[in-house]
Parts: sequence; C-alpha cells; structure tokens
Amino acid sequence: MSQYKHVALIGLGLLASSISLAMRRAGMDARITGTARSKDTRDTALELGLVDAVFDTAAEAVQGADLVILCVPVGAMGVIAEEIAPHLSEGCTVSDVGSVKQAVAEAVGPHMPDGVHLIPAHPMAGTEKSGPESGFASLFDNRWLLITPLPESSHTAVERLKDFWTALGSNVELMEVEHHDLVAAVISHTPHLIAYTMVGVADGMNRVAKTEVVNYSAAGFRDFTRIAASDPTMWRDVFLNNKDATLEVLGRFTEELLALQRAIRVGDGDFMFDYFTRTRDIRRSIIDAGQDTEAADFGRGKPEK
Amino acid sequence: MSQYKHVALIGLGLLASSISLAMRRAGMDARITGTARSKDTRDTALELGLVDAVFDTAAEAVQGADLVILCVPVGAMGVIAEEIAPHLSEGCTVSDVGSVKQAVAEAVGPHMPDGVHLIPAHPMAGTEKSGPESGFASLFDNRWLLITPLPESSHTAVERLKDFWTALGSNVELMEVEHHDLVAAVISHTPHLIAYTMVGVADGMNRVAKTEVVNYSAAGFRDFTRIAASDPTMWRDVFLNNKDATLEVLGRFTEELLALQRAIRVGDGDFMFDYFTRTRDIRRSIIDAGQDTEAADFGRGKPEK
Repeated sequence: MSQYKHVALIGLGLLASSISLAMRRAGMDARITGTARSKDTRDTALELGLVDAVFDTAAEAVQGADLVILCVPVGAMGVIAEEIAPHLSEGCTVSDVGSVKQAVAEAVGPHMPDGVHLIPAHPMAGTEKSGPESGFASLFDNRWLLITPLPESSHTAVERLKDFWTALGSNVELMEVEHHDLVAAVISHTPHLIAYTMVGVADGMNRVAKTEVVNYSAAGFRDFTRIAASDPTMWRDVFLNNKDATLEVLGRFTEELLALQRAIRVGDGDFMFDYFTRTRDIRRSIIDAGQDTEAADFGRGKPEK
Repeated sequence: MSQYKHVALIGLGLLASSISLAMRRAGMDARITGTARSKDTRDTALELGLVDAVFDTAAEAVQGADLVILCVPVGAMGVIAEEIAPHLSEGCTVSDVGSVKQAVAEAVGPHMPDGVHLIPAHPMAGTEKSGPESGFASLFDNRWLLITPLPESSHTAVERLKDFWTALGSNVELMEVEHHDLVAAVISHTPHLIAYTMVGVADGMNRVAKTEVVNYSAAGFRDFTRIAASDPTMWRDVFLNNKDATLEVLGRFTEELLALQRAIRVGDGDFMFDYFTRTRDIRRSIIDAGQDTEAADFGRGKPEK
C-alpha cells in the first residue's frame, strides 16, 4: 500500500504535533504542511520541525496534499471544509481526529468535491495538554484508532488510511458512525462531563475552602481534575455535537446515581456492596485487555525514594 | 518527643502494611504486632516481616501496645473497640486510618477506658489495591494526614501521634471531625461514588458491547475504572458512615449536572465553555500545590520507546 506523499495538518495542537512526530518516527518521508489559527502556534510548529512549511490559511496548506487531517475542534470543521474544498487534489483523502463522527460527516461531507475521499477517524488517545509543544511520538502506541467509513467511502482509500495509522502505532478498528458516537459517549464524553461537574461542585462549596480542595485532593479527585483540565473549546464542541448519545447515557447515569443515593439514605449496604463489586470486575477486564497498567496508583502515589 | 515502643496494627491490608514498611524505613525500632480476620493475611504479614508477631485476636495483639491503629473498614471498628477495650494499656493511644471520622469517634469512643487516648486520623493516601502485599514504604510521602482530635484529646498525645506520622513521610494537619467529613465527601467520597456509577452505567449499556467498553476505554474512563476498583467493603462503610455529608455533596452534584445536561440539550455552548474553563483553573492550582504531576497522562499514555 503506497504511503501518502504529502500530509496537511489543519490545526497544530496535541494530536497534530503527535501525528507529525509519529510519522517521523515511522520513517515516513512525506512532506508535512500545516496551518493554525494563531501565528504563535504556526511559528512554534515550524520551529519544532513539526511541519516542513506553515501557511496562514488552510486553503494554502492543503494544496497538493494527498491526505488532509482536520485537527481542530469539531465545531470548526464545517467552515474549514468549505474553505479547503476548491483546493483539494483529485483522489485526496480528508480525515480528522474529532471525538464525534456523525457531526463531522454531516458538517464536512456536503462540501467535499467528487473524487475526494472523506473518511472520519478518531484516535482514542490524548492527554489534557494542548498546543504544538504537547505532542509526543508515542501518543498513539497501542491505542485504538477508530475509522468510521461512510457508505460511499472507497475501500482502497480506507485501507490506505488504516495502514497510515497502523504505522503510527495505533490499533485500527472500523466502526459505524452512529455506533461510534454512542460508544464514545459511554467511555469518554459522559465521564468527562461528570468530572467537570464534580470539580465544579468542589469549587463551589462555600463551607469547604478552595485551599482545602487543592491541598487535600486525594487520588479520586485528582483524576477528576486532570480530566476536567482538558481543552474547554474541544469539549464544548463534543457535547454540542454528540448531544443525543450523551443525553442518553446521562439519563442512565442519573438513574443509577439516584439508586445509589437512595441506598446511602436508607442505609442499604448490600446494594452498595454488590454494585461496587460488579464495577471492580470491569477494572480487571481492562487490565487484562492491556489498556492500562496494574501498577499501584500508576506510580503517582509512589514517588522515588 | 518519645517514640512509640509497641505499635499494634489491627487489620493488615494496604495501609497497615505501608505503615509497617514506613516505620522500618524511618528507623523506628518499635515492636509491631498485628492481627487480621483471615489466617492467610496473618501468615502473609508475618512472612513479609510486616509484624514481629501476629495474633488470632485483636485483644491479644494490643496487649502492651502504646499505639493501636485500627486499619479495618469503619463498620468493623465499633466491635473491635469493644473487644480490645479491657486489654488496652494505661496511656495508650488508639487511632485509626478510616476515611470518615465522626462515625469512628462515635463507634469507638464509648468503649475507650479512662487513661486511653482516642485520636482519629485519616491518611489521604491509598491505591486501589488491598491486602498485606500491596503496601509500600513511600505511600504516605508528601501526602496529607489529617488528625481530628476530639475535645477531650490530650495535647501531648496528639503531638506524639503527629510526630509519628510526620516520620512516616506525611504532612500532618489538624482538623475538626465534622469538617473533615465534609471535606472528604467533596474530594474523595463523592468522586468515588460517581466513578462507581459511571462504570456501572457503561457495564449496563445493552447497545454497547462489554468488549467495546473494555477495549476502547480511553483516559477519562480508565481513571474511573481505577477509582471504581477500590475495596467494596471499605467504600460501602464510608458511605454508610458519612451519609449526611455525602448526600449534601450529591445534591449539589445532581443540580450542577442537570444544569450542564440542560446546556447540552438546548445547545448552550457558552455555558459549557465557561464551566469547563473554571474547572481547568482548579487543576492548575493542584499542580502548583505539588499534589500531582504535570506529566502528560502521568506517563500512562507515553510508553517506553
């Protein structure tokens, strides 16, 4: 399968910079062009060698590219698609790294000219960091990359994109667009919303000083603050664009939380014990699947001696 | 301040074993005795050298001790207090490592004979692991240890316990019992309940396969499963024994979550953006306070190359 010769990265944050570094690590000699809204970001990306050339506009950045990856918040993709459409090369693949896929297909799809392959994709990897200096070559190693081909997607173009992401370290799977959004709502979007909420509650408690929240934050809460430190624009766009699935999962969440709340109120220890035992088993499955380490507290609570 | 000469550990799980290892690391030459409900645990603790002697009963283990630390679930402390009471030495300090403090004071206090100092304490440290082999000497390093003296607690005895925990690596602070329970509900207990709930929801979604939940679990959800993997008995007891504070925080949580849910439903992106920006600031404060590392994904998403 032939490699891409010219990859254009639209947006130069954590994911784009990691793609560039992983491409280099994989020995790909593709030309990499890029653009970002902020001049600082463009300058930094060029200085760091993440791109061979930066451009002020996406229209310029995509010229001659055979792979364009939209690495911007989902809410910005429609406008960019419209801007780049006349400048895309025949046979070019347009993909993205957005956390929702139905909305991307709907926002970008109508702008795509004939002969251009739109193939949405979602790397299940990330950190709470943003910006071109936050990337690293191993971000995608052993992480899932979900490609959600559209009914009209060319098989050959999908396979080519699959090979690209595999070379970057990902485990690639294909999934239907709508199903992707439900899965993502369950394992990523709703957990993020809940973490944001919990951190907001802690911040708003009058009877607990902010210094107490900050100083005494133990394992549970620290994880929440890390999740809740992710890019606000990105997450706003996720929720605006995965509304139905998120609301469905939130509905179930509220129902279950109220059941646990009731168990606390009435002192039903058996209900809690059974619930907590069941969830513990899921953790075991995730460790067995190699998606996380068994190391106590991931080394965080265990500083060097 | 004189060190303790004989420390009795009642319960030999993660915290007790870490106390023993941290005592040895600190060069304390105190005799350490212990007991646990299960013979396996007792045998393992002895084999690992965590205790100088194990006993079948708490009554035997505490004999001659000048510090007794209850390292069992909060729900078990009352019965143990009753059992050990006649065997406690004059001037002995009885403390604990429970996550709630009002309930401990109420369950243990009435059994304490005159001349014994009951001083509840709570190390803000832990992992999701259980058992005597899960401990490590640095668990308490740079972590907070909240001592919640009772109105009748002897100042000298409190200072002595404070020195003990400081030597084990903790940053010790004093706090009122009731306030402790509210702070703990905010930064630890409610986040745990929410994590349990989210993992339970994911497990119960019919339209999402369990393998999908397990395989694709990304950063957000993985943190939740880790939290939700903690000891079910311990957490059941926490919620049964910190009911009022947990319900108060849960009430606020539900309120805020519904506000965010409404913002998603009506598409109020500004509300979400402002909310997510505010919570991000809290994360920054926690990193500045040295309670967590800034390292991307805590090294988890960044395997060795």
